[in-house]
Amino acid sequence: MRDLVDIGMGRIARRTYELEDVDIVPSRRTRSSKEVSTAWQLDAYRFEAPILSHPTDALVSPDTAITLGKLGVLGVLNAEGLWGRHRDVEAKIAEVTALAAQDPDPTAPIRKLQQLHAAPIDTELLGETIARVRAAGVTVAARVSPQHAQELTPTLLKAGVELLVVHGTIISAEHVSHADDEPLNLKTFIAELDVPVVAGGVCDHRTALHLMRTGAAGVIVGYGATEGATTTNEVLGMGVPMATAIADAAAARRDYLDETGGRYVHVIADGDIHTSGDLAKAIACGADAAVLGTPLALAAEAPGHGWYWPSAAAHPSMPRGAFLQVETDEERPSLDTVLNGPTDDPYGNLNVVGGLRRSMAKAGYSDLKEFQKVGLAVHG
Amino acid sequence: MRDLVDIGMGRIARRTYELEDVDIVPSRRTRSSKEVSTAWQLDAYRFEAPILSHPTDALVSPDTAITLGKLGVLGVLNAEGLWGRHRDVEAKIAEVTALAAQDPDPTAPIRKLQQLHAAPIDTELLGETIARVRAAGVTVAARVSPQHAQELTPTLLKAGVELLVVHGTIISAEHVSHADDEPLNLKTFIAELDVPVVAGGVCDHRTALHLMRTGAAGVIVGYGATEGATTTNEVLGMGVPMATAIADAAAARRDYLDETGGRYVHVIADGDIHTSGDLAKAIACGADAAVLGTPLALAAEAPGHGWYWPSAAAHPSMPRGAFLQVETDEERPSLDTVLNGPTDDPYGNLNVVGGLRRSMAKAGYSDLKEFQKVGLAVHG
Amino acid sequence: MRDLVDIGMGRIARRTYELEDVDIVPSRRTRSSKEVSTAWQLDAYRFEAPILSHPTDALVSPDTAITLGKLGVLGVLNAEGLWGRHRDVEAKIAEVTALAAQDPDPTAPIRKLQQLHAAPIDTELLGETIARVRAAGVTVAARVSPQHAQELTPTLLKAGVELLVVHGTIISAEHVSHADDEPLNLKTFIAELDVPVVAGGVCDHRTALHLMRTGAAGVIVGYGATEGATTTNEVLGMGVPMATAIADAAAARRDYLDETGGRYVHVIADGDIHTSGDLAKAIACGADAAVLGTPLALAAEAPGHGWYWPSAAAHPSMPRGAFLQVETDEERPSLDTVLNGPTDDPYGNLNVVGGLRRSMAKAGYSDLKEFQKVGLAVHG
Amino acid sequence: MRDLVDIGMGRIARRTYELEDVDIVPSRRTRSSKEVSTAWQLDAYRFEAPILSHPTDALVSPDTAITLGKLGVLGVLNAEGLWGRHRDVEAKIAEVTALAAQDPDPTAPIRKLQQLHAAPIDTELLGETIARVRAAGVTVAARVSPQHAQELTPTLLKAGVELLVVHGTIISAEHVSHADDEPLNLKTFIAELDVPVVAGGVCDHRTALHLMRTGAAGVIVGYGATEGATTTNEVLGMGVPMATAIADAAAARRDYLDETGGRYVHVIADGDIHTSGDLAKAIACGADAAVLGTPLALAAEAPGHGWYWPSAAAHPSMPRGAFLQVETDEERPSLDTVLNGPTDDPYGNLNVVGGLRRSMAKAGYSDLKEFQKVGLAVHG
Repeated sequence: MRDLVDIGMGRIARRTYELEDVDIVPSRRTRSSKEVSTAWQLDAYRFEAPILSHPTDALVSPDTAITLGKLGVLGVLNAEGLWGRHRDVEAKIAEVTALAAQDPDPTAPIRKLQQLHAAPIDTELLGETIARVRAAGVTVAARVSPQHAQELTPTLLKAGVELLVVHGTIISAEHVSHADDEPLNLKTFIAELDVPVVAGGVCDHRTALHLMRTGAAGVIVGYGATEGATTTNEVLGMGVPMATAIADAAAARRDYLDETGGRYVHVIADGDIHTSGDLAKAIACGADAAVLGTPLALAAEAPGHGWYWPSAAAHPSMPRGAFLQVETDEERPSLDTVLNGPTDDPYGNLNVVGGLRRSMAKAGYSDLKEFQKVGLAVHG
Repeated sequence: MRDLVDIGMGRIARRTYELEDVDIVPSRRTRSSKEVSTAWQLDAYRFEAPILSHPTDALVSPDTAITLGKLGVLGVLNAEGLWGRHRDVEAKIAEVTALAAQDPDPTAPIRKLQQLHAAPIDTELLGETIARVRAAGVTVAARVSPQHAQELTPTLLKAGVELLVVHGTIISAEHVSHADDEPLNLKTFIAELDVPVVAGGVCDHRTALHLMRTGAAGVIVGYGATEGATTTNEVLGMGVPMATAIADAAAARRDYLDETGGRYVHVIADGDIHTSGDLAKAIACGADAAVLGTPLALAAEAPGHGWYWPSAAAHPSMPRGAFLQVETDEERPSLDTVLNGPTDDPYGNLNVVGGLRRSMAKAGYSDLKEFQKVGLAVHG
Repeated sequence: MRDLVDIGMGRIARRTYELEDVDIVPSRRTRSSKEVSTAWQLDAYRFEAPILSHPTDALVSPDTAITLGKLGVLGVLNAEGLWGRHRDVEAKIAEVTALAAQDPDPTAPIRKLQQLHAAPIDTELLGETIARVRAAGVTVAARVSPQHAQELTPTLLKAGVELLVVHGTIISAEHVSHADDEPLNLKTFIAELDVPVVAGGVCDHRTALHLMRTGAAGVIVGYGATEGATTTNEVLGMGVPMATAIADAAAARRDYLDETGGRYVHVIADGDIHTSGDLAKAIACGADAAVLGTPLALAAEAPGHGWYWPSAAAHPSMPRGAFLQVETDEERPSLDTVLNGPTDDPYGNLNVVGGLRRSMAKAGYSDLKEFQKVGLAVHG
Repeated sequence: MRDLVDIGMGRIARRTYELEDVDIVPSRRTRSSKEVSTAWQLDAYRFEAPILSHPTDALVSPDTAITLGKLGVLGVLNAEGLWGRHRDVEAKIAEVTALAAQDPDPTAPIRKLQQLHAAPIDTELLGETIARVRAAGVTVAARVSPQHAQELTPTLLKAGVELLVVHGTIISAEHVSHADDEPLNLKTFIAELDVPVVAGGVCDHRTALHLMRTGAAGVIVGYGATEGATTTNEVLGMGVPMATAIADAAAARRDYLDETGGRYVHVIADGDIHTSGDLAKAIACGADAAVLGTPLALAAEAPGHGWYWPSAAAHPSMPRGAFLQVETDEERPSLDTVLNGPTDDPYGNLNVVGGLRRSMAKAGYSDLKEFQKVGLAVHG
């Protein structure tokens, strides 16, 4: 079943695979792109494409959350980011990206981010921010860390959040602690909420299954791995290549479906998805949807203005994300073009949804769920 | 038989190999290059070397189609390219390559190509173009996409096309569609034609076998994978490394030979063939012939003047090919030198047929069919 | 058990793994970093973190040995380095690093080092150096080569050395020689000493077990492999990737524990540890502690002032180490920051102990010994 | 036995290994370098180190052949190179290397070499050249191609050649040809000679065994693979990674020893040996000696003056070798330093024999034959 190797005498490791190791192998009758649906539904919320934004201030402002929602995908605001701490976020971000552009020292923008995050969260301001998105009529989602979920959730719910994303580098269903501040018990937390919760990230089958048992509507698999940006592997030595991590979480989904007699928890892939081809591979490995970071950061509307950083880059004592310049061009494409094209870019960076749709059509599948069964190859 | 790996729990992928993973292992008595034949026959047409051109305007004009034919290989005109849309193709191409040379933005020449392909096909002009090649007495081949095969074929046949190449990124024997415009049913289409049809590309055994059953004389395996040029993998996430794809299509050829009691359908490898060594490896993996793109683009006669782009680069909404500069030198070698040498280039770029011939001789084989059985090694 | 491959007919090799091939897979309940202990004890000496310095003059002066000791880790002075040969070591090192910075010829600083090491060891000076560290109240450790262990040890003990490190590129428990100068028999040597001995390096299970049987308190596994610095593989063709070497030595530790009915010999990993993630992986593969070279060389206090070279770089006729610039910045972090943070560096270079602690916490383990059982994955 | 993989349906390839994939694993008692012998004997000729030069004019002039001989290794003159065609070879080589240095076009020096080799071989001049080496009292060896062996050998023998090297890119024991010019039958050829013959190169067990049965004293395995210089793989698609090729030839040596009841044919590795570590690995894989190209080209005495090209670079119509700059430094080390050190170079480029000796000592072996049994590891 699992492919195990002896790395040394008496020490076993599992062989695992990256998305870039995997190719989709078309072997059925092709079909028309027009007859393919990329739609996806999470709890009561339907989306035209299986895409969530990474919850970083580099991507998601109230304005881009609204734009993403109108384009049929889910923008997730970082409730612990700058929008709940400062009123002039655009100006603050401009200071950070100016530092990143000018200073060859890669830690300078991190230091600035750490300073900006040292400001306390202003719950009133956070509420206003969420309410702006709600007022626009799109599905409203916000991300909290396990550490601050209890504290911030009331504000978020009051302001109209419809989907809560509980997201840390590596989280588990139940945290062990004997300290005074009682950590989050996800099961209890979710049981008491009226809105669906998406939780993650996890790297393996067991933790994914545990999270599913908390009552989460979706489980995020991966930790946002992005070459040059997310640095969890360098800092913690942790990681499971995404193709394997997704397939394991999909196995947990099947196991949980069986043990509950039919509760379907969505698997959301978060990491190494840079092109339409990567997105297609993530679905093909078993994901129901995927988190996009750098691809959305290409857009003209993205607050990072050509720069990307994951939310973990702002950690006060141990940042696990770096600054990445994703686009140097003055004329950046719109979010609509990034998602739906048409495009003159031949590298799969734009028309990301169109690329997924065409991949499904060429492989002969008409919906996402079926496409999870397409043939796969690995190289060498 | 097939080498399968678990990429994750319950998700299997097949292990596959690139041409660059493969080495030819000589283990027989060597023989003289002079006693080796590289000849190849497709239907009634005999060629001195097992080479077709990629059907891109970067390589094939009426003039180069004639030159290639006289050199014993097959030039395939793209019936949906610029030669059927514009009278001053050389000038138009010069505009595109000038953009590629001047503009650091890699999408600029793509955008220009898209504009040039927006002009309608002038069937009269297309007919004249084909007729010019026919008049020169060489075998006349043209490429159509599955979408436009029905519409363009009468013009092509009337103008004298002897071999029809039905070629798309990924095609299947029968396309599923409920749309108004009825898609191509290849079997019916081929049955009604008097000329042999080569169809592709495919990536796997099953689709190759299906195409063989349509009555095609040859099946193209691969999608023209060329590092830096063809970008199907980035856009669609699809692909099978060429050594495996060729071997699988060769297995389909054997299966079809068996089920028909003797109908031999040629396997034509299209992708990752840049040098004489690559060509030898493609044959060694089981191909009867190969499509060459970038190697022919080196030639002085190539209309791209040192630039290469695959035909998929002109797609109106989702290009899957890029511009690649293959030669910066003013003094480019002739097509004859590219194919037959002699050469002072030690990298296998020139004298491509001579390199294949010598590889066969060193390995002790005297014709292409036998050489498909030479020993192979993969690295590590 | 061991994963063997035929590299050719009748010739077998073992498949082995680097630390960078390995990922830690968290699959238990996470816990608080505050409840994690990184403490480690070697014989009577307890350390707050499982870290020893590489015994090179680039890192360890009497001052940095004292600082490292106060920070809870072990600085090892090279008894055969410059501190026992010259009184003005800082000035001498400044000459060497100036050469490294100015001369593009990479052998120039090596040549200078060779000259400086040609000066004889002044045992009085060496004794004074050791005594300075002893006077500061931290654990005093010094490194000798097997060749000079007999000769230098009395001086070292008299000056107050508490831990002796017998360290060469590759050493064995018993050296074969018929020459006049009788080589070191480690078992006899250790039996006659009152202080604990750490010995190495070794690459495999058998040699590790032999060293354990000499009575050593710890065995160093690896030869300080550092990309760009240690060159044992280029010079001798020798090496075993560290993940495998550590796991094998840990197996020897278990075997020796069993055969002695309870004597625990510590396994100390020496090679390829550049970040907090690497340190976590080394422990996860089975190490009790690790030798750090380049990470400590980042510090403001390091005598190499941004340059690193292993002690083997000074060999008179066959150097097996090179000069590596680890930091060009004027403002280097303190040793305290390198070890304990906080940091604005997202790449795992700083807060090395904090990164290890957080990795253990995320994986749900509370001490180093337990963490040796965490799940592992290897890539592809 | 052989590790086979399916590259596609019904097509099998063997898994093979490069020298750089292999590590030597020391696991015995170390011994003193002084007690290690690197001596080697081929027929009646004894050498202090298991090294032959590649037969290229870039390395071997009459003067360097003499120097190499005095240093205890074997310099092989290329009887079909420039020394038998021109009287002012140094000046001619200076023209070629000047072109290589000035012209960015990599084919310019090849073209020049092709022109210089178009001059006929002057057998009188060739005889004088050989006689000069003979007069110096060192073992005299010359290389001929299979094509010209019959024609040139009488001249060579008359001039005093003691060892004949019959060397082509890929050769076999018996060549198949129906052409007028009867090709070389090695068995007959060798039987009629009084001097020992070394023949090659070969890539596999079967061809190696066939060459042994011709009566050759040594078989060259490999085709001089040198990254950036030898281009046989690009041109012919042929090759077997050296670790595998050497091990297979060593198996042929054992088989032939068995079938003849004791005739030992030496296996000489030719390819990918750039450092002392590579040399140690080649012996460890089963070679009795090795051909060195680029390492010797570093030396001040080498006629290429810092440039290297294999003899195949001069082929008139299909060169399979390129120009490689191995040393830009004005002060190049002597051949003696390259072979025997001492050195201040930490990368295994100098003191090549010393590095081999130390590797054997660290691994606990005292002669080359025993060292062929040392433990090996491959990576990942």
